[in-house]
Amino acid sequence: MKAIEASLIKTHKAAKALQAVSSKALQQLLMDMAAALEANQAKLLKANALDLARQTSGNPRNDRLLLNEQRIGSIAASMRKVAKLPDPTGEVLAERTLPNGIQLKKISVPLGVVGAIYESRPNVTFDIAALCLRSRNAAVLKGSSEAATTNALAVKILHGVLKAHHLPTALINLLPPDREVVQELFKATRYLDVLIPRGSDQLIQFVRSNSRVPVIETGAGVCHVYVEKKANLEKALAIIVNAKTSRPSVCNAADTILIDAPIAARLLEKLQPAFAAFEVEIFADPAAHRLLKGYPFLRKAAKADFGREFLSMKCAIKIVAGIDQALEHIDRYSTKHSEAIVSEDKKQCSRFIREVDAAAVYTNASTRFTDGEEFGLGAEIGISTQKLHARGPFALEKLVTEKWILQGDGQVR
Amino acid sequence: MKAIEASLIKTHKAAKALQAVSSKALQQLLMDMAAALEANQAKLLKANALDLARQTSGNPRNDRLLLNEQRIGSIAASMRKVAKLPDPTGEVLAERTLPNGIQLKKISVPLGVVGAIYESRPNVTFDIAALCLRSRNAAVLKGSSEAATTNALAVKILHGVLKAHHLPTALINLLPPDREVVQELFKATRYLDVLIPRGSDQLIQFVRSNSRVPVIETGAGVCHVYVEKKANLEKALAIIVNAKTSRPSVCNAADTILIDAPIAARLLEKLQPAFAAFEVEIFADPAAHRLLKGYPFLRKAAKADFGREFLSMKCAIKIVAGIDQALEHIDRYSTKHSEAIVSEDKKQCSRFIREVDAAAVYTNASTRFTDGEEFGLGAEIGISTQKLHARGPFALEKLVTEKWILQGDGQVR
Repeated sequence: MKAIEASLIKTHKAAKALQAVSSKALQQLLMDMAAALEANQAKLLKANALDLARQTSGNPRNDRLLLNEQRIGSIAASMRKVAKLPDPTGEVLAERTLPNGIQLKKISVPLGVVGAIYESRPNVTFDIAALCLRSRNAAVLKGSSEAATTNALAVKILHGVLKAHHLPTALINLLPPDREVVQELFKATRYLDVLIPRGSDQLIQFVRSNSRVPVIETGAGVCHVYVEKKANLEKALAIIVNAKTSRPSVCNAADTILIDAPIAARLLEKLQPAFAAFEVEIFADPAAHRLLKGYPFLRKAAKADFGREFLSMKCAIKIVAGIDQALEHIDRYSTKHSEAIVSEDKKQCSRFIREVDAAAVYTNASTRFTDGEEFGLGAEIGISTQKLHARGPFALEKLVTEKWILQGDGQVR
Repeated sequence: MKAIEASLIKTHKAAKALQAVSSKALQQLLMDMAAALEANQAKLLKANALDLARQTSGNPRNDRLLLNEQRIGSIAASMRKVAKLPDPTGEVLAERTLPNGIQLKKISVPLGVVGAIYESRPNVTFDIAALCLRSRNAAVLKGSSEAATTNALAVKILHGVLKAHHLPTALINLLPPDREVVQELFKATRYLDVLIPRGSDQLIQFVRSNSRVPVIETGAGVCHVYVEKKANLEKALAIIVNAKTSRPSVCNAADTILIDAPIAARLLEKLQPAFAAFEVEIFADPAAHRLLKGYPFLRKAAKADFGREFLSMKCAIKIVAGIDQALEHIDRYSTKHSEAIVSEDKKQCSRFIREVDAAAVYTNASTRFTDGEEFGLGAEIGISTQKLHARGPFALEKLVTEKWILQGDGQVR
């Protein structure tokens, strides 16, 4: 593994080169990378076909690996969007003159070298490279063996653009897709500043438990929509249906609906045909189960159905006595991702905002908006449910750290 | 360990109470705590004497455990200072109206429950309690068995003030000083939001390696002073002597001096009597060793003497060919805490600021200023050499996380 260390040393050194490049030149670099990606579309599709040919046909996971014209187009579009985002480094975060005359400044600076461990989606290679370069970080990439041919060509294309800009190719360091490489990354505290696992929950937990390099973690979302008794039921219906059915496989989709008892019968009457149209399987608590008698996809909720991230057309429903019980339930089962209240009562909305502990708290809107693009932050690495460093969409603006600069004239303490 | 879990649940619930308290009332709470501490001075000294009586007499570690009038006075003064710091929560960090009409806001909010694991210094009990309450966090404290009697009384005094303010005593939760308690804290991800180890490097590493609760880590400082060839030698001398000798046992003290070859002879000539007065033991590289012949406390530097945090009147010295070599040496051996250049050449100073990767980078000033109070941030938990969440002094302003609030009127995606 001497070769891996040698390549990490090169990347660590190359990272410093990015500090002297102008923001405009970095923007042009990403625009040129997007163009190179499109210009090499045919070759990329061929490489991707080779990767796909090695997989068992009919495996549903093959779709994650697949590139096509449309996907390449959207990767290029995303790179151009990242290019246009403002430079997150060099921001003056604090500035003062100390009583002794020292000029103190705190500025945002790149993290340095960002490592990424990910699964078979080839877009991650481009996404991470773009976000890292725009924020003046070097990227160390460890993709999956399934995507090896695609990733190798992808990085070759990006290296061509780096060379044309007289920048070191070590800024994007694609490592071999071997398991031993992962172990090397876990202990590379001297050369890697952070490590980002991107993919399944298992992958994230594995990296979190084993890495000595600090991990930027994105998490699962067990999201609740609570319909308070003074809710506008039309709004509640639209929000629930959207939060559950518009894209059930993503982390900001709703999992559990909590409904105040006095309005439960009326709301569930409206909800049944809407959910039935999407064949949503409902896991109901006893009270909701009684009200939903006759619903075609009805099941009794087991204990484990609350706090479960369904990622599919399944939904838990529970009737609550009021906001106290709703808040308690959310506190018990939420993964602190996105939580919503539907109510026309401003006081209850304020209480919900204050007391619910989550990255994103909504009043009268769908939880589906928790997303970097929707929040106006641009492309994201994922949604952080951690409390340290970043919470919510982990976007370009968080790929930085701080540096305190103290300029003196001989001051001593 | 059911009892521990039950107490953590209480603290988790109590933490919510702090959100509704006014900032003024919290300030008064801390002022009253400082007063209660002073009013109970005699009792505290008696409790502390009991703890001390249980130790082996003559153990140099007993000084860390000792309370006296002066120390109690400075703890109370520090609590009053923390009281006066601005509320770090409720700050609007971002605010915009999304194209769909949703009102988006990002605000700073408390972390929730902060756990602290520390050694025998009793002041930590008060410091952590004050910083947590001012930032609307509850505190879970695990001190050492050496200080058990002192800590128990300390928390009893603080509980009295909480009661007088009609606040739950569970906001300051002192756990038994048992090893098993630590294991409970490591896995208490449902009730603890962060865990702070405060004390020796071993303690910090132990917590970092074993906790599943996110850890706020403060680190060791291997700090360099680099004297560039265009330095003002009088300033260089004052800065080196101050950085090394003013308080050698702390993390922001200098460990290695790097000197440009052309000025090395002149600078070392001035430095010898100054260092000799403090009996500073010098670990010199071959070139410096030749120039220091005759210095009474001279040793040849072994390889391991560079990158060593001395925490005492010891200092490594190396002659370098110029800034490139100095930057390379720092990159290799720095723990990214505090680094200084002494030079009148603005270009070299700018390069040093840009290229050195450390929490605090100095030009023409002593590294000893890296400290929350000196930076104008108030009391600190320690100096973070991490890049995520907080870098440099870990003070009140970083005991918070963020919350995204989205207020809509029925919006769906």
